[in-house]
Amino acid sequence: MPEKLVTNFVDHICIAVKDVKQAEEDYIAAFGWEVAYRYVDEPEKIRVTGFMVGPTAIEIMEDTDGTGEVAKFVQRSGEGVMLISYNVDNCEKSLETLKRNKVQLIDQKPRLFAEHKRNFAFIHPRATHGILTEIIDGKYLL
Amino acid sequence: MPEKLVTNFVDHICIAVKDVKQAEEDYIAAFGWEVAYRYVDEPEKIRVTGFMVGPTAIEIMEDTDGTGEVAKFVQRSGEGVMLISYNVDNCEKSLETLKRNKVQLIDQKPRLFAEHKRNFAFIHPRATHGILTEIIDGKYLL
Repeated sequence: MPEKLVTNFVDHICIAVKDVKQAEEDYIAAFGWEVAYRYVDEPEKIRVTGFMVGPTAIEIMEDTDGTGEVAKFVQRSGEGVMLISYNVDNCEKSLETLKRNKVQLIDQKPRLFAEHKRNFAFIHPRATHGILTEIIDGKYLL
Repeated sequence: MPEKLVTNFVDHICIAVKDVKQAEEDYIAAFGWEVAYRYVDEPEKIRVTGFMVGPTAIEIMEDTDGTGEVAKFVQRSGEGVMLISYNVDNCEKSLETLKRNKVQLIDQKPRLFAEHKRNFAFIHPRATHGILTEIIDGKYLL
């Protein structure tokens, strides 16, 4: 029997777009939502705008230089949802659960998401039918 | 100024897969999650398995006969997230908000989701950068 990965909620959903400024304008024009946060993560090559829907952040993101994973996703599949992230109490312990379940992982240890000071780790899309899947520590701190 | 679409939470996220039975087995093996529900919707040509993550259902779905929208999505983009659905208090009133914001809609009036007795409506993916977007009535009734 597989061990249960206990999740709190969907932490965020990432939508890969070509132009985050344009997409932000389009989402605001359509839904009247307030921007919850914006950030640029140079190592990950992403420029991000987040909107909150209940406990879940809807993140739109573009590639900062056209060579990162977001650019590759858009080239391959068009604009669309690239990632689902599950909020867990303890990323490190949850990774151990996934290892015992023999899940194919991208990260064997948590990475630190410096912007929000939270640990996270990626599960390989091959384990989840095409969706880059993330687990991330703790409650949303915004 | 656009009028605000008030949302409660992400109601469900739909992952289009080739074989829902296989994907269900894979998700259970990876995460140890319990199946919250299964259903077949013949008019929509979908066979669905739902898992709950907080208030949000993670739905995996396959096409029932290879000619529906899910099959087209998989052919075009591969397996992946096809739809995000936002839970709203009143789908009909929310549609009026979207119309005043001049959002491109698929449905001008709510459809009834018979399985769960809730109204829903689709927003065109062109309005949301490639994601088929839904609004759906009320709290999750499962």
